[in-house]
Amino acid sequence: MAISLSCPPGSQLERLRQTTPLVHNITNHVAMTPSANTLLAIGASPLMAHALEEIQDIVRVADVLCINIGTLSVPWIEAMQLAAEAAHLAGKPWVLDPVGVGASLLRQQTCRVLLDHQPSVIRGNASEILALAGEASQSRGVDSGDDAEDAIVRATQTAISLAQQHGCVVAMTGLVDVVTDGKQLIRITGGHPLMGRVTAMGCALSSVVAAFIAANDEPLSATASALACYAYAGECAGYHATGPGSFVPAFLDTLYTLDGETPPLETRMEITNVA
Amino acid sequence: MAISLSCPPGSQLERLRQTTPLVHNITNHVAMTPSANTLLAIGASPLMAHALEEIQDIVRVADVLCINIGTLSVPWIEAMQLAAEAAHLAGKPWVLDPVGVGASLLRQQTCRVLLDHQPSVIRGNASEILALAGEASQSRGVDSGDDAEDAIVRATQTAISLAQQHGCVVAMTGLVDVVTDGKQLIRITGGHPLMGRVTAMGCALSSVVAAFIAANDEPLSATASALACYAYAGECAGYHATGPGSFVPAFLDTLYTLDGETPPLETRMEITNVA
Amino acid sequence: MAISLSCPPGSQLERLRQTTPLVHNITNHVAMTPSANTLLAIGASPLMAHALEEIQDIVRVADVLCINIGTLSVPWIEAMQLAAEAAHLAGKPWVLDPVGVGASLLRQQTCRVLLDHQPSVIRGNASEILALAGEASQSRGVDSGDDAEDAIVRATQTAISLAQQHGCVVAMTGLVDVVTDGKQLIRITGGHPLMGRVTAMGCALSSVVAAFIAANDEPLSATASALACYAYAGECAGYHATGPGSFVPAFLDTLYTLDGETPPLETRMEITNVA
Repeated sequence: MAISLSCPPGSQLERLRQTTPLVHNITNHVAMTPSANTLLAIGASPLMAHALEEIQDIVRVADVLCINIGTLSVPWIEAMQLAAEAAHLAGKPWVLDPVGVGASLLRQQTCRVLLDHQPSVIRGNASEILALAGEASQSRGVDSGDDAEDAIVRATQTAISLAQQHGCVVAMTGLVDVVTDGKQLIRITGGHPLMGRVTAMGCALSSVVAAFIAANDEPLSATASALACYAYAGECAGYHATGPGSFVPAFLDTLYTLDGETPPLETRMEITNVA
Repeated sequence: MAISLSCPPGSQLERLRQTTPLVHNITNHVAMTPSANTLLAIGASPLMAHALEEIQDIVRVADVLCINIGTLSVPWIEAMQLAAEAAHLAGKPWVLDPVGVGASLLRQQTCRVLLDHQPSVIRGNASEILALAGEASQSRGVDSGDDAEDAIVRATQTAISLAQQHGCVVAMTGLVDVVTDGKQLIRITGGHPLMGRVTAMGCALSSVVAAFIAANDEPLSATASALACYAYAGECAGYHATGPGSFVPAFLDTLYTLDGETPPLETRMEITNVA
Repeated sequence: MAISLSCPPGSQLERLRQTTPLVHNITNHVAMTPSANTLLAIGASPLMAHALEEIQDIVRVADVLCINIGTLSVPWIEAMQLAAEAAHLAGKPWVLDPVGVGASLLRQQTCRVLLDHQPSVIRGNASEILALAGEASQSRGVDSGDDAEDAIVRATQTAISLAQQHGCVVAMTGLVDVVTDGKQLIRITGGHPLMGRVTAMGCALSSVVAAFIAANDEPLSATASALACYAYAGECAGYHATGPGSFVPAFLDTLYTLDGETPPLETRMEITNVA
């Protein structure tokens, strides 16, 4: 059964721009600059901070938290835990990006501890969603190796279970994006293959999801709206780019000029109930 | 009373290019790459280093130091203190960028300790200048929330007091830029709103100020020249860009092609004596 | 005597693309994002990780390792040692980039320890190659100050000795690139002066060399092929760019669209036996 969103993506984007949510990121070294630029382009305000000594202050001032486990180290893991706990206790939403979780035991352990603090949204590629659930994946590193059709079907089931288990929204992105809260499933089409040839596109998307859920009430539809904007901007940029180098400025310009009325945003979503 | 600079900005830029000052940066993770690229574009040579064990060696080889307190951690704070102390003792100029100082107690404490080592220039936005002086600001994060006219007038007074108190130059940048040594005040016009939609533009400007004061004798006019070049390049890039993505390459290209004779540089400055 | 490569650079590029080697980088904070984007553009898969606790896992899953000593700290030095040792024991190739090794004692000591783990390739500019061998250089920071003709001749001799001493390939890049295993010397022409005005171009090249040696059997010719692709892409991008800002997207686009059949690749190499 097809269902419509109570609030269309364009309106959610407009609300983000009116409220310019302050997004606290504890993210990996590669994603620092791209994530900040992507947040600024779409209309949010980025803040990166990882010192244990200021985490409480930063969580207090920020509207939302985004934790990304790439380029871990022990002090950063402690900061992530403290930040996730503080955000959860303060009733502030937070996003977990389990980047490359399948690549090491340290990443798996870190995610396990972080999941105890109840993220609002988990965003990863198919390999990461599978690895987070303890299932085997084809991934070797941080880029997805699970984009084949049957792998996506299997991973979608895993995403639904994960959402039910943790009472959160799970966004699985790749050739096709799916978002689920364990009850409904939203498929989002769009994007462009060049998005896989630019670093930190997924990481920056997690930050954009954080901005959307800070500005809007329903995490499921807010996450889907974030993905729809991203997929649309990726498609536009891919159309104009001649490679991954020219893709980046075109992508940021498109995010910046996206209009709440941009017609394709809504038509990219297909919502169904999970049986 | 309007006064002219003893050395015009174009000549100061030429001197920077002839001497290619080596700028030692201890800066935040977001600003690392943009700051290095901005320094290279304008004709300086960037060096990033933060290990306590090599700080003394690096300060010795570098011409100038730029310290930016974003993405702090305890080991980095120690390195900043050691570097500031070593630069001060060696008689080398250094720049303090108190990024987001209002956001946490840790940042305030760090700035207090660093100020003891007598920076040559402090560069921040209005919110940061206010917070550094212990005054209330509208800022929530690292981006300025104090761009209204009366806020700027108040912050300008604070900048003048700060310069007098610490015997340094204070550069306050935003919709309007002001530079003061507590005796004279230089207002610089130019720039473009897109500069607020690109991360680390302020951080990179602090590094460019460092390059200018290393290459030229008078910190006040050297800082003003750095800001004039930046404001001019921002205006040109903003004119050609369709968003923050295309702004960045256009901005770097403009800095690179800036000519010492570029006429608009001088006409953007208005110098007055502080009453 | 001129010799031809047993495997042409175009074929080596094709093999890289077919195998998409997973490149583990422990690199400096400035080079993180550019290196990842450069690897993705040419067709490899980047992974950045430096936690001691996951180094063994990451080395196991990766095809090759690239260590770059910029922005050192003690915990990172420990990770580098562990990674180099693990890679060497596992028979996996690894690349050492001794960035700015002349700038501090800490960098010299770090390189000395790393060299014990037998890198497959050392890649640096002339100043770094000289400093690594304990010879005086004109460099003050991380950018080369040794591009004059006689300095290059002297540095080339040093590169040959270094390759013989450590039983590895040495790639010295700058206005002219030379690659040697101590028996043969390959000179590669191309590139563009704007490459010196963009940060981390050398660092990212070290990662590209890592990808090439992972995908191909002979380190000498694989390294030369990496440099030929880079020099060609730099020349193309420089032709189209109006400055360092527009150079970067053009460079990445060219790497991405490089074809195994691109004719100029082979003609840029001149191979001689070391007397």
